[in-house]
Amino acid sequence: MINIGVYGATGYAGYELIRLLDRHAAANLVFAASASHAGESLRGLYPRAPELELLHPDDAPIRDLDLAFLCLPHTASAPLARHVLGEGARVIDLSADFRLRDAETYEAWYAAAHPAPELLPRAVYGLTEVNRQAVSSAPLVANPGCYPTSVLLALYPLVSENSFQGPVMIDAKSGVSGAGRTPSATTHFVEVDENLSPYKIGRAHRHIPEMEQTLESWVGGPVEIVFAPHLVPLSRGLLSTIYLRLPGEQGEAELRQRFGELFSGEPFVKLLPPGEAATLAHVVRTNDCAIGLAMAGDTVILTSAIDNLLKGASGQAIQNMNVMFGIDETMGLS
Amino acid sequence: MINIGVYGATGYAGYELIRLLDRHAAANLVFAASASHAGESLRGLYPRAPELELLHPDDAPIRDLDLAFLCLPHTASAPLARHVLGEGARVIDLSADFRLRDAETYEAWYAAAHPAPELLPRAVYGLTEVNRQAVSSAPLVANPGCYPTSVLLALYPLVSENSFQGPVMIDAKSGVSGAGRTPSATTHFVEVDENLSPYKIGRAHRHIPEMEQTLESWVGGPVEIVFAPHLVPLSRGLLSTIYLRLPGEQGEAELRQRFGELFSGEPFVKLLPPGEAATLAHVVRTNDCAIGLAMAGDTVILTSAIDNLLKGASGQAIQNMNVMFGIDETMGLS
Amino acid sequence: MINIGVYGATGYAGYELIRLLDRHAAANLVFAASASHAGESLRGLYPRAPELELLHPDDAPIRDLDLAFLCLPHTASAPLARHVLGEGARVIDLSADFRLRDAETYEAWYAAAHPAPELLPRAVYGLTEVNRQAVSSAPLVANPGCYPTSVLLALYPLVSENSFQGPVMIDAKSGVSGAGRTPSATTHFVEVDENLSPYKIGRAHRHIPEMEQTLESWVGGPVEIVFAPHLVPLSRGLLSTIYLRLPGEQGEAELRQRFGELFSGEPFVKLLPPGEAATLAHVVRTNDCAIGLAMAGDTVILTSAIDNLLKGASGQAIQNMNVMFGIDETMGLS
Amino acid sequence: MINIGVYGATGYAGYELIRLLDRHAAANLVFAASASHAGESLRGLYPRAPELELLHPDDAPIRDLDLAFLCLPHTASAPLARHVLGEGARVIDLSADFRLRDAETYEAWYAAAHPAPELLPRAVYGLTEVNRQAVSSAPLVANPGCYPTSVLLALYPLVSENSFQGPVMIDAKSGVSGAGRTPSATTHFVEVDENLSPYKIGRAHRHIPEMEQTLESWVGGPVEIVFAPHLVPLSRGLLSTIYLRLPGEQGEAELRQRFGELFSGEPFVKLLPPGEAATLAHVVRTNDCAIGLAMAGDTVILTSAIDNLLKGASGQAIQNMNVMFGIDETMGLS
Repeated sequence: MINIGVYGATGYAGYELIRLLDRHAAANLVFAASASHAGESLRGLYPRAPELELLHPDDAPIRDLDLAFLCLPHTASAPLARHVLGEGARVIDLSADFRLRDAETYEAWYAAAHPAPELLPRAVYGLTEVNRQAVSSAPLVANPGCYPTSVLLALYPLVSENSFQGPVMIDAKSGVSGAGRTPSATTHFVEVDENLSPYKIGRAHRHIPEMEQTLESWVGGPVEIVFAPHLVPLSRGLLSTIYLRLPGEQGEAELRQRFGELFSGEPFVKLLPPGEAATLAHVVRTNDCAIGLAMAGDTVILTSAIDNLLKGASGQAIQNMNVMFGIDETMGLS
Repeated sequence: MINIGVYGATGYAGYELIRLLDRHAAANLVFAASASHAGESLRGLYPRAPELELLHPDDAPIRDLDLAFLCLPHTASAPLARHVLGEGARVIDLSADFRLRDAETYEAWYAAAHPAPELLPRAVYGLTEVNRQAVSSAPLVANPGCYPTSVLLALYPLVSENSFQGPVMIDAKSGVSGAGRTPSATTHFVEVDENLSPYKIGRAHRHIPEMEQTLESWVGGPVEIVFAPHLVPLSRGLLSTIYLRLPGEQGEAELRQRFGELFSGEPFVKLLPPGEAATLAHVVRTNDCAIGLAMAGDTVILTSAIDNLLKGASGQAIQNMNVMFGIDETMGLS
Repeated sequence: MINIGVYGATGYAGYELIRLLDRHAAANLVFAASASHAGESLRGLYPRAPELELLHPDDAPIRDLDLAFLCLPHTASAPLARHVLGEGARVIDLSADFRLRDAETYEAWYAAAHPAPELLPRAVYGLTEVNRQAVSSAPLVANPGCYPTSVLLALYPLVSENSFQGPVMIDAKSGVSGAGRTPSATTHFVEVDENLSPYKIGRAHRHIPEMEQTLESWVGGPVEIVFAPHLVPLSRGLLSTIYLRLPGEQGEAELRQRFGELFSGEPFVKLLPPGEAATLAHVVRTNDCAIGLAMAGDTVILTSAIDNLLKGASGQAIQNMNVMFGIDETMGLS
Repeated sequence: MINIGVYGATGYAGYELIRLLDRHAAANLVFAASASHAGESLRGLYPRAPELELLHPDDAPIRDLDLAFLCLPHTASAPLARHVLGEGARVIDLSADFRLRDAETYEAWYAAAHPAPELLPRAVYGLTEVNRQAVSSAPLVANPGCYPTSVLLALYPLVSENSFQGPVMIDAKSGVSGAGRTPSATTHFVEVDENLSPYKIGRAHRHIPEMEQTLESWVGGPVEIVFAPHLVPLSRGLLSTIYLRLPGEQGEAELRQRFGELFSGEPFVKLLPPGEAATLAHVVRTNDCAIGLAMAGDTVILTSAIDNLLKGASGQAIQNMNVMFGIDETMGLS
């Protein structure tokens, strides 16, 4: 059994993790911690949660852990990661603190000095299908963001060679759970209902450097993303529609073959048949990423759908845990 | 008073027209016709409709009309247009039958011979802000499709010169009323709710030739559109997010100036301030088109929102009627 | 022209009032005040609002007013009402502060001493259809709560005599705008979406004494309400399903006749035909109250639907204003 | 392994059954049959379904079965039940054909002669918690309707003695999947969205005789139900709010004790703590029935929530299967 602590247990990702761990045959939840709800029962926040008392992070028995999941805001996560690693446990961090390899880039996008730059070389970017080997032995896994997961899995087979031109246009749509559990004007039912809201259009969203860093590592040169996320009136699910121009004479069949070569054995990546686009109905409440592929002249249009709380957060975190501890990668996820 | 008949009065566009005409100071509704519901009251279909008996189209007194609105499926509309014009009334057609100038293009996209090709030269494309002059004297106005309205108004200031490169990427999202009132698996609540569905991705949607025809007339050469429409879980509203690459050194301020020059006096086109993207909340239940403009490198990202049943259908039809009959263009629409 | 000030302009009721006043032919908005957003533009909160600068309440020119609308929380409203009345203007209060005639009842339900008990005798309960005469000359009108409006209008024709037995069971369903604009866990999209939540079941909701006070005045004796409100996943609209046992041999036709006698000339009350229940589609975005009537043995089942922000708040407030100032009661509301 | 056939596999209940059977350790799906989609794959209708070819009912190998689930319309189900029973398999019928004990009552409510009255004595009403013993040996189980399941489980502890007075008022709210998968005006997204629709108010809904029959068997005398179902804008879930007048001096604690005595060991019935009402969030995607209990004077208000497709249909069907075949009642359901 893996002895596990969850920090930040009361947010949507934290609660989803606890639900997944509860039915995971190899997981033993040692504690769930929350600074804001310490002493309360998780059942008071979620009607279907177990009666589980939330510990204050300062009171949590870190030394009993093999693994800690950190579901905290960026800049809060890194110092705790340092502490947990120092006590000998491994860490899967669901915040952005260890996704960027470079402390300067972090500082530029997050307007804060990196709280634990010395750990950056030890962190592995946990896009499981791509970095499985490195994840397996990593002390610290940076769980990818929700948008990057959907985008990078869809682009991986196409940009592993320097094979496209111009910027990659990403039109992404997310359900409201992606905005977190803290109430705000943005997440008020009346503001979201019957509305569609693009936000942080162009080069403004913090997932851009995360996507570009990975794409550039695949391409071996600069990549430019144009990114337009949209808030849509539904709770769970994320769909990225990606527009990419390929030079030369590559046909859909050839592209599909590359997907097959790279992803045919993957349990959680589903390339859809020709003519079928990815929808949320393909993926919600699963750890799957469904990918549709269509062409229009030399433009490839990819549709890539995930459940933002599962493959886009807690599901992929469990997947990474399974890889890190050498157990069946799908355990607890199907 | 303009004496008016509405054909296809029971669909969403037809009913919306009747609501608008009901409060229009210069409109006199002579009849509302429906083949499928002849003899019934409109109130039986819409709980807030007036008690208005629907006539069978064959029984409708065409000779009393100054104007007929046709809210019929394509191929059904054109023969009726011929008949109405023959009786001396003018026509605003909300179907696709007269949007394409060229009968061969129509046949290629609609898989049917054009039912009234001799009328094509008399038809004016009713994108009011752009073709106001021609609309004013037209016997037959082809009311634009919902997607083209949102896209063309946003692009008009930018592509009036040959000033962009590569395909125009259009990622569009429509509420379910855009799919019409006839029940189908696609419009079943359970299929739409909590889902997002891209459909007819790439070069498959029939609004593509309509958009390309107009863009090409502005540019004076070929234009290629890549188009991905999405069905979203809400009733009314349409948002197009448009990605366009501009060569050279054009800044956002310069582009905004062009919008101002072309649209500053327009009552229904609203360019949003820098940093604000168009949302459905800007436009639903109005005849407005709200346009946001952002840049990322040499890519312009336009967000263009309309109410698909108003500016995207019946509202623009009333606007065209007002122009055709020389009355205040905003009458009945604000 | 009526010179008008709106206090609490940024909540849903306040904004709805401003929208209604904007198109009201006899209304002149002197100011819109907000303590929390003073100095900002209303446009910053609502994308379709006019560019209207919000004044701090302390800076608002009360002396220029004929009428103030108070859209403030209970206990905050009453002191301001005193101040406005002292300056010679009339008041329509949308809070609960003047709905209960009796300061002790207020204190029992609102856990606070009444802030202006001396004004209670001057306040008229603004259920317009019932109290029109008193409203017309009132200095201070207590605008009814949303649930009471729907319930009382439906019951008025049935309980004007002591003609029922046992408690009145009221099962009410409200859209989320009824919970106000302040973000909270209750109004978070993810908590509301795909959910139904009964709350304050039985004898817990503060609208109970308001309903009982009015019913008892009609009956001339004690009335007991059992009340179960529910939050439903939609933005606007309120539906009350009311179960009432009538003794003796009263048939549906007889009951319908009583409705007709009392409400036949009312512009905003619509008794639906036999077999038709009230739905939100009958009323949303109107000032109407639609009422359905069905029977099962000696039980009458009333369905009563309103738009909670219009007939349930700001619309009825305008209706009361029209009555108070002797103008057409429907002005600005149809 | 239990060898199983599913008839009517393409509706929501049929598909849900197949999903449940797919992960049930003791179930072997021999075939899924559909008259309307014979020869097609279930995957064509549901994006996450397995590639399972649908057989025509006439071609289905009945003789290989231990058990058939019938997910067919009423009157279509009974003849097939006769056929299956004749071939030696047991039957769980999800239609209404065997819920009423009495062929005359059936005829009165369903406007059709009962197609297999000789089987009525062999049928057991499959409200598992109440009829577990009889279900275990039944050849033919009539799976309860969705509304009756929620209502009867909540009332069972309270009306096992003749302990209430007057009619039972039931205000029920159902998600749209309860209306089935066949597209209709009623289930069109635009008609449901932002709406609430009471329907079949009073004594009109066919679940009334089903509820009264069971209640009367518990009480030993006549029981009258007043029933108002409502369609609400969400996909899954059903909430009944039940108003019942108890004579005498019964307190909430005493009633809660009766629930405890009857349901304390039940895996799928959850009595909520005092002050907590049942919501859909308690139950959706589970086989649970969550019940809240509150009092107002001598009126008990019960809130009872289920997932209409699970405890209200296919989940309870699996639960009955488990009981019939002597395996753990929760297998495949938790």
